[in-house]
Amino acid sequence: MKIIVDIGGCDFPHKMIGGALEAAAAHPDYDIVAVGTKEQFESYGKDYTRSNFFAEYVTDVITNDDSPTHAIRQKPNSSLVKAISLVNEEDSAGLVSGGSTGAVLTAATLLVGRLKGVHRPVLAGLMPTAVDGKLVCIADSGANVDAKPEFLAQFAVMADLYIKATSGIESPVIGLLSVGSEDKKGDERTKAAFQLIKALPLNFAGNVEARDALNGVYDVIVCDGFSGNVLVKSTEGTAKLVMGKLKGAIKSSLRSKIGALFMKKSLYNLKSAMDYHAYGGAPFLGVKKPVVKTHGSSNELSTRVSIENVIRMHEHDIVSAIAAGVATDATTEA
Amino acid sequence: MKIIVDIGGCDFPHKMIGGALEAAAAHPDYDIVAVGTKEQFESYGKDYTRSNFFAEYVTDVITNDDSPTHAIRQKPNSSLVKAISLVNEEDSAGLVSGGSTGAVLTAATLLVGRLKGVHRPVLAGLMPTAVDGKLVCIADSGANVDAKPEFLAQFAVMADLYIKATSGIESPVIGLLSVGSEDKKGDERTKAAFQLIKALPLNFAGNVEARDALNGVYDVIVCDGFSGNVLVKSTEGTAKLVMGKLKGAIKSSLRSKIGALFMKKSLYNLKSAMDYHAYGGAPFLGVKKPVVKTHGSSNELSTRVSIENVIRMHEHDIVSAIAAGVATDATTEA
Repeated sequence: MKIIVDIGGCDFPHKMIGGALEAAAAHPDYDIVAVGTKEQFESYGKDYTRSNFFAEYVTDVITNDDSPTHAIRQKPNSSLVKAISLVNEEDSAGLVSGGSTGAVLTAATLLVGRLKGVHRPVLAGLMPTAVDGKLVCIADSGANVDAKPEFLAQFAVMADLYIKATSGIESPVIGLLSVGSEDKKGDERTKAAFQLIKALPLNFAGNVEARDALNGVYDVIVCDGFSGNVLVKSTEGTAKLVMGKLKGAIKSSLRSKIGALFMKKSLYNLKSAMDYHAYGGAPFLGVKKPVVKTHGSSNELSTRVSIENVIRMHEHDIVSAIAAGVATDATTEA
Repeated sequence: MKIIVDIGGCDFPHKMIGGALEAAAAHPDYDIVAVGTKEQFESYGKDYTRSNFFAEYVTDVITNDDSPTHAIRQKPNSSLVKAISLVNEEDSAGLVSGGSTGAVLTAATLLVGRLKGVHRPVLAGLMPTAVDGKLVCIADSGANVDAKPEFLAQFAVMADLYIKATSGIESPVIGLLSVGSEDKKGDERTKAAFQLIKALPLNFAGNVEARDALNGVYDVIVCDGFSGNVLVKSTEGTAKLVMGKLKGAIKSSLRSKIGALFMKKSLYNLKSAMDYHAYGGAPFLGVKKPVVKTHGSSNELSTRVSIENVIRMHEHDIVSAIAAGVATDATTEA
C-alpha cells in the first residue's frame, strides 16, 4: 500500500520530506509517495532515494491566497490535485497534506468524496490534556464554521468511532463544548445539539466549559468549527504565551539562570508535552479515504506522526467503521 | 458616592469582604456598601467596622441553579436584587457582583436598564497579553451567545469607548475574532460583522485568530459571547494546565527541586502574571451604571481591582461616553 504526502502548500517542504523519509524507514511495508515541485525536493539538500520513498514532481502549488473551489479546478498540476488523484487509486491507504486547510478539506470532500449519509466531514484534531499521555479529540477543530445541530451530533458519532478504532478506548467520553456545564447552557445551536446527542447510544457526559476541555476527563469534545478553532488556537497561543513568560522569568536574573540549568531536563520535558508537532495533524473524518491535514508549519516529527495516523486509520479500517456507524445513526443525511 | 458590592452569590464571601475593606481603606472618598447574608458577614471572622464600609444584610441569595429572570422576580430579598436597588440610587457610582453571570447580567439589563440605542449590553473582560502590563478587552466574553452581526459591531463601539476612557489609549486597535486572519475568513455572522465594523470610524485591524488574540497587538477583540467565552476559558484552562505540568516537572527530580529554589522569585512572578484575579472582573457595558461582574471564586485582590474599575468607569463617566457614542453610531437600535 502507498501513502501520499502532499508537501506542496507547506512552509518547510524539506522538513516534511525528512519526516516522510523517517516514516518510510520505520514502515517498510508501505510506500511513501511525496508530491511537490522539483525545487521543493531540492530544498531537502540531501539524497532522498529510498526503496519505498517516491518523489512525484508537479509544477504548481495551491496557496492560502487561492480560493479553494476555484484552485482545485484551475490548478490541475498542483501538488494537492495530483496527490488526491493518487489517493483515489485502489492501492492507496490515505493522504497527509500540509496545504491550506480550506483547499485540503474542499479537495477531500469533492474529489475523495463524502461517505453516504455524512452531512459534513469533520476535522478531528488531537490535543494534549492535563493527564500525561492522554489526548482529546476536538470535533470539529475548524472545518465547518456554520454547522447545524445535526452536524454536531454526527461529529460525535464519527469521532467516537475514530477514537474507539484507533486508541482502544472502549467507550469514549463525549463532551459538548458550551458556556457552562449545566444541561441548559449554550447558544441555540448547542442546546439543540445537546438533545440530539443525548438520544444517541454514546457515552455522553453533557456540556463542558472550554476551561475543562483539556482536563483529561473527555476523549472527544464536540463543537462547531468556529468555536473549535478558537479552542484549539487559543490553547496553542496561551501555551506559547506562558512558555514565553517562563523564558523571560528564567532570563530575568542570574539566580534564575542557574536554577534553569538544574531544571534543564524537566523544562525540556515540559516543552515537549506542550509541542503540538508531537500530536501530528488532524484527521478529516467522513470521506472515503483516511485524510490527515497536518500543520502548514509541520516539521519532521509532525509529518511522521501524521503518516503513522494514516497507517493506523487504514489498518483499523476507520472508513468502513464510519460508513457503517453513520448508516445506522439517526442523524444521518437522507 | 457609594459603590455596591454584592457578595451573595460568590464562593468565598469572606474574601470579597476582605477585598471590599481594602478598597474602602484605599479610597476614603467612597463608601463601600457590601450586600450579603448575616452568615456571610460572620464568615469574615474579624471586625469589619470602618467609617466608609457598610454591611447591608439580606436573607436570601440567587444561586447558579436559579433561572435568572425567575429568580429576580421571586427573590426580592436576595443580595443581587437589593444591590441593584441600591445601585439605582442617585449617589451610587456602580456595582461589583460575584453572583451567577446569568443573574447579574439579566438583573443589570432589566433593573439597571439598557442605554437608549444599545442592542445588547456587552461583557467586556480584560485578559493579560504577551506584552507585560498590557491587557486586552474581550467583547463579548460570555453574555450574548446568540449575537447578530450588528450586535458585534456595537460591541466594538462600546469597548473602544471603554478602553479610550479608562486606559488613556487614544486609538484602540480592534480585532475581530475569526478562524483566519484574511478578510474573507469566518462564519456568516463574522463575515457580516467584518463589513459593518470596517465601515465604522474605528482603528479596525481586521480578523484575528485566537492564537494571536493575546499577542499584545490588540486592545479589543470583538466576538460573539459563545466563542468569547471559549477564548477566555480555554486561556484560563491552558494556563492552569501548563502551570500544573511545570509544577510536575519541578517535582520530578531532586535536581529540578533545587533548580526551582533558585528560581523561586521568577516562578512567583510568572504565576502572578497568569493570575486572573489580578485583572478583576468584567465590566458590563451598555447599561445605565458601571457594573462589573467579578469571578464567583473572587479573592481579595480581584474584588479590590473590580471596585477600582468601577471607580475608574465612574470618574471617566463611561456611561455618558457610551450613551453619546451609541447615539451617533450607524449600528444603533432604532
